[in-house]
Amino acid sequence: MESENRPLDALNRARGHRVMVELKNGKQFMGVLKAFDIHINTVLENAEERVEGEMTRKLGTVFLRGDTIILISPE
Amino acid sequence: MESENRPLDALNRARGHRVMVELKNGKQFMGVLKAFDIHINTVLENAEERVEGEMTRKLGTVFLRGDTIILISPE
Amino acid sequence: MESENRPLDALNRARGHRVMVELKNGKQFMGVLKAFDIHINTVLENAEERVEGEMTRKLGTVFLRGDTIILISPE
Amino acid sequence: MESENRPLDALNRARGHRVMVELKNGKQFMGVLKAFDIHINTVLENAEERVEGEMTRKLGTVFLRGDTIILISPE
Amino acid sequence: MESENRPLDALNRARGHRVMVELKNGKQFMGVLKAFDIHINTVLENAEERVEGEMTRKLGTVFLRGDTIILISPE
Amino acid sequence: MESENRPLDALNRARGHRVMVELKNGKQFMGVLKAFDIHINTVLENAEERVEGEMTRKLGTVFLRGDTIILISPE
Amino acid sequence: MESENRPLDALNRARGHRVMVELKNGKQFMGVLKAFDIHINTVLENAEERVEGEMTRKLGTVFLRGDTIILISPE
Repeated sequence: MESENRPLDALNRARGHRVMVELKNGKQFMGVLKAFDIHINTVLENAEERVEGEMTRKLGTVFLRGDTIILISPE
Repeated sequence: MESENRPLDALNRARGHRVMVELKNGKQFMGVLKAFDIHINTVLENAEERVEGEMTRKLGTVFLRGDTIILISPE
Repeated sequence: MESENRPLDALNRARGHRVMVELKNGKQFMGVLKAFDIHINTVLENAEERVEGEMTRKLGTVFLRGDTIILISPE
Repeated sequence: MESENRPLDALNRARGHRVMVELKNGKQFMGVLKAFDIHINTVLENAEERVEGEMTRKLGTVFLRGDTIILISPE
Repeated sequence: MESENRPLDALNRARGHRVMVELKNGKQFMGVLKAFDIHINTVLENAEERVEGEMTRKLGTVFLRGDTIILISPE
Repeated sequence: MESENRPLDALNRARGHRVMVELKNGKQFMGVLKAFDIHINTVLENAEERVEGEMTRKLGTVFLRGDTIILISPE
Repeated sequence: MESENRPLDALNRARGHRVMVELKNGKQFMGVLKAFDIHINTVLENAEERVEGEMTRKLGTVFLRGDTIILISPE
C-alpha cells in the first residue's frame, strides 16, 4: 500500500513499543515511543539514557526535540 | 485519545510543574514550566542552571529559544 | 489567561526593563529590552557585553539576530 | 521523460533494493530502502551500521532523519 | 508607537549611518548601512573588516548574508 | 534573456555533462549530472568520490542531499 | 528610491562585473557575477578559488549554494 511506504508509517508501527533514539550529541535514549510529529519531535516513556552502551540516567517521560535526532529504531 | 498522542501534549501536562531542560551546549535548566510554543521556545520560572550536576546560577524567569533545546523532562 | 501562557508574553512583560541575553558564542549582553519579534531578533539599549562576568564593551543600541540567542532573562 | 529527471526519482527506483546511506557524523547504514519523503527522512530494513568499513551494529528497521543524511547510493 | 518597537525599526533608524556588524566567524565589518531585509541580509558601503580590533581589509561595498550575522550596532 | 540569468539555469545547462560537486565535509564527487531540484538535491551517475585529489570510491548512481553541497562546477 | 535600498539591488548592480565571494569554510572565489537568487545561490564565470590570498584553482563556471556564503563584494 502507498500509505505504508512513508517514513512516518514506520514510526507509527513502533508506537507503544520500545525504541532506541540516537541524538546528534552521541547519546542514546531507550524507551516506549509515546508520540511523534512531522518534525520528529518525540516523546518516550520509561526512558533511560545510554552513553557508549552504559545506562547513565533514568528520565521517566522525556520530550526530545526533533532536530537533535539522528535515528529511531525499534528494539 | 488521538489528542494525547502528540508530543506537545506531554509538554502541556508538564505545565505548572518542575521540569529539566537540557541544551545543545550541555547546560541544564531546572524550573517550573510556564509556557512553550510550537518552536519549543520555553519559559521557566524559579529557574536555576546546572552544569555537570552543580547549580551554577539562579535566573528567576528565563526564556529559552527552542532551537537550543535537546530535551525536556518532568522531574 | 491563555494569552499569558505564551513564551513571547514573558518577553513582552520584560520590555522596558533590563535583561540579560546569552548567545551561542558564550557572550552575554545586558541592556534594556527595547524590541523583539517572533524570530527573537532583539534590540537592547544601553547595552554592554560581558564575557565570563567581565564587562568587555559598551554598545549603546544593539540589534541581536534571533538565531544566535540561547536565552533571555530579566535581571 | 521530465519526471525521470527529478532527484527523488532516483530514490524511487532504488525502493526495495539495498542502498548505502552516509550520515554527517561519518557513519554508514546499509539496508533495503523501504520509504523516504521530501525531507529525505528514510527508512531502511535489515539495516546494519558500518564505521570505517567495519560492521558495528545490526538494527533491523531504522528511521533516519533526513537532515543527517549526506548521500544515498544503491549498492 | 507600536511601529517603533519592532527590531527592524532600530536598523531602519541606522540606515545611512556607520554601523558595526559582527559575524559568527568572529570578524567585524564597519561601514555605512545602505540596505537590509527581513533575513538581515545587509549591505554596507565604505566598509572595512576588523579582526581583534585591527583593520584587515577595505571592501568598499559589501553584501553580508543575514544568517552569518550576530549583531549590528550603530557606532 | 532573463530566464538565463537564474542560478539553476547554469545547472540546467550542465545536465547530462560531467560536473564536480564539493561537499561541506571537504569531499568531492565527480559524475554526470542527472537531476537536481530547488533544494540542490543532486543525482550523479558514474560517480566517483575524491578526497584531496585522490579517487577514493566508485559509487555508480549517487543522490546528494542539497544542504551538504558547497559548489557544483562543470568539468 | 526605495527599490535601490534592498540588499539584492546591490548584487544586481554587480551583475556582469567581477566580485569576490567569501565562504563559511574560509575560501574565496573571484569571478564575474552571472546570476543569483533570493537564497543567494550564486553563479560565477571565469572563477578562481583563493585560499589565504593564493590562487588555488581555476573553475570556469561555478554554482555556489547560498547558505555557504558569508559575503559578496565587487572588486
